[in-house]
Amino acid sequence: MSYDPNNIFAKILRGEAPAIRVYEDAQTLAFMDIMPEAEGHVLVVPKEAAETLLDLSEDSARAAIVTTRRVAIAVKQALEASAVRVAQFSGADAGQTVPHCHFHIVPHVPGAVRSSHATRMANPADLEVIAEKIRAALV
Amino acid sequence: MSYDPNNIFAKILRGEAPAIRVYEDAQTLAFMDIMPEAEGHVLVVPKEAAETLLDLSEDSARAAIVTTRRVAIAVKQALEASAVRVAQFSGADAGQTVPHCHFHIVPHVPGAVRSSHATRMANPADLEVIAEKIRAALV
Repeated sequence: MSYDPNNIFAKILRGEAPAIRVYEDAQTLAFMDIMPEAEGHVLVVPKEAAETLLDLSEDSARAAIVTTRRVAIAVKQALEASAVRVAQFSGADAGQTVPHCHFHIVPHVPGAVRSSHATRMANPADLEVIAEKIRAALV
Repeated sequence: MSYDPNNIFAKILRGEAPAIRVYEDAQTLAFMDIMPEAEGHVLVVPKEAAETLLDLSEDSARAAIVTTRRVAIAVKQALEASAVRVAQFSGADAGQTVPHCHFHIVPHVPGAVRSSHATRMANPADLEVIAEKIRAALV
């Protein structure tokens, strides 16, 4: 499938759409999921224009997992989570909702409220409070 | 948490327990999940002794995602899947059942039967037939 440069993550990468960012380097960007499955749900996006992990270059895949690991460590610490789930959906039938490759980081916090993915819009001010904790935990 | 060298994936890596292998290189091993969530469910295991992605070195994380991507492409082709889900669970509360870091590759094949993870043992002969298709699709 050909890559759609007008998808929302492409717009975020170009600075044309807002996002609550927690980490950025030359090859990747991490920001809060606006429709979180749980508090502390972060997305890691490689900057390369690729729809799925299968279309992505090996080099960008390497960069994406290193950022995912680093941010996951920070999310676990910031949220005082007992566990962290990382997920990458390649294709709508696997649950992909935005056609730009991304990795989900979802912490498991005992007793916390959980939602189905992409069903409930979070309050940006609430997300910013969590994002600041995650930024502070990044090493 | 300290790594338990007697977990089943450590035994597979040492050749002390059987596995239906589809791919191996210096840093990673990929084999069929014996309790698949769907037909074509493959696990990718870094050889480094680490319990979770968070404990794993960046170098092994890079190797693991490159193998995961390669095998996922082959799984998609071999199973004629419409989509592929990649998942990595760090911690029992996130769904981790074996305490050695691993990545799940689960194809979505329209109309195929799906199970809950780790509830039903597959027939090794059936897995071998699927494994051979995946090996043939690896480039």
